Amino acid sequence: MKYYIGIDLGGTNIAAGITDENGKIIAKYSAKTNAGKPFEELVADIAETGKKAVEAAGLKMSDISAVGMGTPSCINPQTNLLVHANNLNWQNVPLYAELKKHFSVPVYIQNDAACAALGEASNGAAADYDNAVMITLGTGVGSGIILNKHIFNGCDDMGAEVGHTKLVHNGQTCTCGQKGCFEAYASATALINQAKAAVEDNPGSIMNEMCGGDLSAMNAKIPFDAAKQGDSTAKSVVEKYIDYLAAGLSSVIALFRPQAVIIGGGISTEGDYLIKPLKQRLYDCTFSAEQIGIPEIVTAKLGNDAGIIGAAMLCKA
Amino acid sequence: MKYYIGIDLGGTNIAAGITDENGKIIAKYSAKTNAGKPFEELVADIAETGKKAVEAAGLKMSDISAVGMGTPSCINPQTNLLVHANNLNWQNVPLYAELKKHFSVPVYIQNDAACAALGEASNGAAADYDNAVMITLGTGVGSGIILNKHIFNGCDDMGAEVGHTKLVHNGQTCTCGQKGCFEAYASATALINQAKAAVEDNPGSIMNEMCGGDLSAMNAKIPFDAAKQGDSTAKSVVEKYIDYLAAGLSSVIALFRPQAVIIGGGISTEGDYLIKPLKQRLYDCTFSAEQIGIPEIVTAKLGNDAGIIGAAMLCKA
Repeated sequence: MKYYIGIDLGGTNIAAGITDENGKIIAKYSAKTNAGKPFEELVADIAETGKKAVEAAGLKMSDISAVGMGTPSCINPQTNLLVHANNLNWQNVPLYAELKKHFSVPVYIQNDAACAALGEASNGAAADYDNAVMITLGTGVGSGIILNKHIFNGCDDMGAEVGHTKLVHNGQTCTCGQKGCFEAYASATALINQAKAAVEDNPGSIMNEMCGGDLSAMNAKIPFDAAKQGDSTAKSVVEKYIDYLAAGLSSVIALFRPQAVIIGGGISTEGDYLIKPLKQRLYDCTFSAEQIGIPEIVTAKLGNDAGIIGAAMLCKA
Repeated sequence: MKYYIGIDLGGTNIAAGITDENGKIIAKYSAKTNAGKPFEELVADIAETGKKAVEAAGLKMSDISAVGMGTPSCINPQTNLLVHANNLNWQNVPLYAELKKHFSVPVYIQNDAACAALGEASNGAAADYDNAVMITLGTGVGSGIILNKHIFNGCDDMGAEVGHTKLVHNGQTCTCGQKGCFEAYASATALINQAKAAVEDNPGSIMNEMCGGDLSAMNAKIPFDAAKQGDSTAKSVVEKYIDYLAAGLSSVIALFRPQAVIIGGGISTEGDYLIKPLKQRLYDCTFSAEQIGIPEIVTAKLGNDAGIIGAAMLCKA
């Protein structure tokens, strides 16, 4: 049996795990990300965290076949530099070369959302499918595309960005600076803004109470909770949000026709309350759905482990 | 040297060609498509047209290694039936099985727009690139996606439909029945409608004269010609059309990040007058263009031969 180190590098935590070649996690170890540290020291921390996970698994480094890591950016295959990780203050850094100094085995680096998709596709919600698209509804809309059980991260490996396809021509400004991106309508942040706007127009909505009359306390759970209690303003917010989500996904489906779409991120915990109407809406708004159907729509299963498992599974590529 | 038959099956013509294994056309032969004929007889016509092309090339059927054909639909890999070709009155027909009866060599069938893209990618505008997206601006917006010099027609091979990604949420109704599709804004038909509407609002536009005061005579060349002559209404129509085109393409680029985008169809004959502003607009509206650039934007080179060459190149797959 081969063993891999999988590392999910985030702005807050370095989460490392040891998996076997089937993606089963044997042990985990995590440490805080000290983004203030000089680049070389932070990379040393990352390597150290991986090695601690090896210890936690009761293994030695000589038992490890390779190291995989997901990062909030990607490696430019032309330069071998990590392009840009905002929350780590990294821009065009030699992450691959630096990390390799700490290991004598092969090292693989990919985008973290793509790793999460690979984790779900290998051992989670899409384990039964060869082809899947995952979107993560959080601060933004993260995405990962899996073709034949491998990450497709754009032809130049610089990102396949579902969140930055256009949904509303000349619509709301996205965090990326463009207008009308899917992310600007379907992220948890977008839902929160949509709910706030609805409460401003309808102060009688119980969403107002649920955030204690303070709209800055609005979160993405409130509109769903209020809708479940029958609040008509919240129902309309949720319905409209699901409509945006379906319309944006219909574009990805028209292009990739994956077997499954995996929905991750905080909002996915709404489960059937989200998935059932989303399926119906997707069926209604997707090209040729009546003739050729729509993919399975499933919620992510692995939570934070998806990133670790997916990073480890890079080693099998 | 191997030789292939490439057939481009359209609603009006059956265009067949013989190519060598490098995609060079040696001879062509074409016949009218008699869509009123029973299925078996029309398929016999198709086979006959291919065989006539073999004769025209001075070859014998024993010189032919395989037959490739592009059709205005696709073969469902689950059933091996052609799904639906409107202009041939075909629905779930055993085209593959029927065509195979006429040849003792392997037969390959794919979507015609995908074949055209493969032709341009093997021997035309994108011959220098492994990864390209082609769109054809005609009655609709046809598309073909080439990954590693092979057609990507969706994970289930049932179509990668750039024209039916969403561009304007809840926008104009598309011929497919959905709302806000890219095709409803960027096809030649859409441009014609946009020009007609502009002339209705601005009867003084020289576009009115150019179609003899009869808006039903509007075509996709008139707004470009009028804009070149300085007509402000036409300029605004063309600018808005290019804006739609760029915005829709930006979604495909965000997902696939191809090396090149090939623009085909009648409108592509506008050349630099279309391509130059399109590049600028694409650069402005595409995710992370400033950091990671945009693909090359090129016009199709092969015209109707693209479909024949691409169909023949299916035989190399």
